[in-house]
Amino acid sequence: MTMVDIIEKKKNGEELNVDEINYWITNYCADKIPDYQVSSLLMAICIRGMNAMETFYLTQAMLNSGKTLNLSSIPGIKCDKHSTGGVGDKTSLVLCPLVASLGIKIAKMSGRGLGFTGGTLDKLESIPGVNVEMPVDQFLDIVNTCGMAIVGQSEELVPADKKLYALRDVTGTVESIPLIASSIMSKKLASGSDCILLDVKYGKGAFMKTKEEAEKLAQEMVKIGTYFHKDTRAEITSMDQPLGYAIGNILEVKEAIDTLKGRGPKDFVDLCLTSATTMLFQAKLFNDKRKTREALERNIANGRAFEVFKSFIRAEGGDVSYLDNPSKFPTAMYSYPIRSMKNGYISEIDTLNLGLISMHLGAGREKKNDVIDMAAGIVLNKKLGDKVNKGDLLLTLYTERSNMQAYETSALNCFSFSQDVVPVAPTVEELITYDQDKDEFSITKN
Amino acid sequence: MTMVDIIEKKKNGEELNVDEINYWITNYCADKIPDYQVSSLLMAICIRGMNAMETFYLTQAMLNSGKTLNLSSIPGIKCDKHSTGGVGDKTSLVLCPLVASLGIKIAKMSGRGLGFTGGTLDKLESIPGVNVEMPVDQFLDIVNTCGMAIVGQSEELVPADKKLYALRDVTGTVESIPLIASSIMSKKLASGSDCILLDVKYGKGAFMKTKEEAEKLAQEMVKIGTYFHKDTRAEITSMDQPLGYAIGNILEVKEAIDTLKGRGPKDFVDLCLTSATTMLFQAKLFNDKRKTREALERNIANGRAFEVFKSFIRAEGGDVSYLDNPSKFPTAMYSYPIRSMKNGYISEIDTLNLGLISMHLGAGREKKNDVIDMAAGIVLNKKLGDKVNKGDLLLTLYTERSNMQAYETSALNCFSFSQDVVPVAPTVEELITYDQDKDEFSITKN
Repeated sequence: MTMVDIIEKKKNGEELNVDEINYWITNYCADKIPDYQVSSLLMAICIRGMNAMETFYLTQAMLNSGKTLNLSSIPGIKCDKHSTGGVGDKTSLVLCPLVASLGIKIAKMSGRGLGFTGGTLDKLESIPGVNVEMPVDQFLDIVNTCGMAIVGQSEELVPADKKLYALRDVTGTVESIPLIASSIMSKKLASGSDCILLDVKYGKGAFMKTKEEAEKLAQEMVKIGTYFHKDTRAEITSMDQPLGYAIGNILEVKEAIDTLKGRGPKDFVDLCLTSATTMLFQAKLFNDKRKTREALERNIANGRAFEVFKSFIRAEGGDVSYLDNPSKFPTAMYSYPIRSMKNGYISEIDTLNLGLISMHLGAGREKKNDVIDMAAGIVLNKKLGDKVNKGDLLLTLYTERSNMQAYETSALNCFSFSQDVVPVAPTVEELITYDQDKDEFSITKN
Repeated sequence: MTMVDIIEKKKNGEELNVDEINYWITNYCADKIPDYQVSSLLMAICIRGMNAMETFYLTQAMLNSGKTLNLSSIPGIKCDKHSTGGVGDKTSLVLCPLVASLGIKIAKMSGRGLGFTGGTLDKLESIPGVNVEMPVDQFLDIVNTCGMAIVGQSEELVPADKKLYALRDVTGTVESIPLIASSIMSKKLASGSDCILLDVKYGKGAFMKTKEEAEKLAQEMVKIGTYFHKDTRAEITSMDQPLGYAIGNILEVKEAIDTLKGRGPKDFVDLCLTSATTMLFQAKLFNDKRKTREALERNIANGRAFEVFKSFIRAEGGDVSYLDNPSKFPTAMYSYPIRSMKNGYISEIDTLNLGLISMHLGAGREKKNDVIDMAAGIVLNKKLGDKVNKGDLLLTLYTERSNMQAYETSALNCFSFSQDVVPVAPTVEELITYDQDKDEFSITKN
């Protein structure tokens, strides 16, 4: 077997077998196959695709390239969740404490933001004192003590993904459902939880632009997880507007705190409750939607979910006085309130562009090593379907950078209006599960 | 413009423009674009293809990567020919002297053999004393003095092709009509002749396996040549059996000498006369098939073509006593005559496998730096359609290597038999030309 044979096979649209996929990943990680051969194969995979078995073998080979986390020291069911990322997505900050407050353990490894999407680690680090890089033992201790922890991805897990992703990023081979699915799932599987909930976002502010693509990716990932005997389910959620009102690290943390205190934006609360319900079903703690929802709402109302949040933030070194009193968080030096020039109902929000504007204001990274301004970002006052009068405040830009006026017009242009009432769909649109025995997906509308 | 943008465009099946193609080739040659990005783009081109304009721009960019040969010091019409390569293809050794004997100048740069195909340079070097590497001035002097010369490809012409080909060879991106067409045509155009005849071979012993592929490649190349204002025509020739009887360097040179002396194998003589006729039409020296053929046959019979051959071989340092007396050539240490076990008409010859067996016997290179045994190879006694009786000599293997008996059986298995008479098609099947004004190809059956 040579790498050229493997490349030729995929170029011709043939299926790669387990030996070929293992040969590729093992030898690439051992630096025995050059980047220029792997990028050629990656392009062939982007165009020709991979079937479910190939994607499974690729995930397995990537998983086997490093260590896997052993969570056996944590008693009970462990759940994990992953979002494909979007604008204003602070879900983990609320969903994880909420689920953990009912006794399900969450040991979550997370990523940083790049481009128009934010990353959970950056948001956590905007709380003074928080340190998300720690030895595995300490991570497991925090999960045991606090019920949950969110830390940075360990370098020892799935080194193949790190190497492949760096190459994909510079060779035009990022967009590929089997490559995205195996990258996400190898990391989730290496993290060792029993259940995995995937939030696959689509729309203007997400990587997947259409619902069809999102469904395809979701199905691919749910299938892989199921093949590995994990209870894996996926939500298809809309990213046609930012999640909640806040975009940017401190701004989103404050919104998460508000939500844990029972004052969250409707769409974001809905997403958190729907996702938490699915996770509690996966953990087999509940099987009745109404009762689950009541239990979750109760743990927001009685402060238990917020207590879990505070407890894990404290364990990670964070100063929880900021959580009790969010007005302590620094605010950005410059703010630009933007008012509507029109009357009407908001019919569209260019979410991708808002994400990019937020990045330019300092809230995100264009390149991997860029420094983030934690207080920068955007706060919306109006969302899809809202009735707006000329002169109403639409949104406010926050930045530490001077001369950012140019973004006022482009931010205003992110909003489209209609004279008719605009119906708004629920954020979580579908739940996808897979029955391995029947080889059938089921799609439940929300 | 970034290389990733260019890759993404081609990945999505879009057309690249002239600036993008120039950016790629110029920066790659200047070592400003890494191999792993170029191999990703090459794979996208292999699968998505390139249209005629893209292929033209790529050829032009490659041509501009180095020097081009100035043949203005050679008076009259200069013709060039190129074969896509096959088993037993010694055509240049006969065709070039034949055409030059009628006054058309031939300044030809040629290549070495790799894998199952031989190379003209290796065949020339099997004549003691011949040196095919020389300064351009000396090359042009020989063309002026002898009417023709065949030398190695100058390093100064089309450096982009050398760099791209080395990468394609190890990244599974060799098979691609636009990449093959631009590679061949950039070198032919850089060589500076007025007319170009292309011999595109297809079948078991050629790179193109089907006639359709061969036609597509031929049309692509003829179009490019025409865009560059060269009279460019292409023959489609069958490689379903070795050309002539001999495979291997000295064995083929001896067959070429026989042919120039009027004792050539029918299929090979036919190919040479047909190709020479086309070249003389291209040079506008003749326009009547019958008269051209007569003139060519006359110059074989009167020894003029052989004299041109001797004269350029002498000019390149060769010992022409070997040409006058081919029995001086060394013979291989071991020979294995192989006799038929069956009666019947030969219906198929596994030409690719015969080429590979010849390589294993020492006549060719598996890798670029392998050393060739000049006397090694194969001589057939029977060809397609021949009637064979059990016990008749089918072929003989020649090698300097001991213990090559294992190849006897595999060589025997290269022959299939039929009890019915097998019709044999002419070697040159079609001639393809292109009318740029009408944007039309014409295909003339032979």
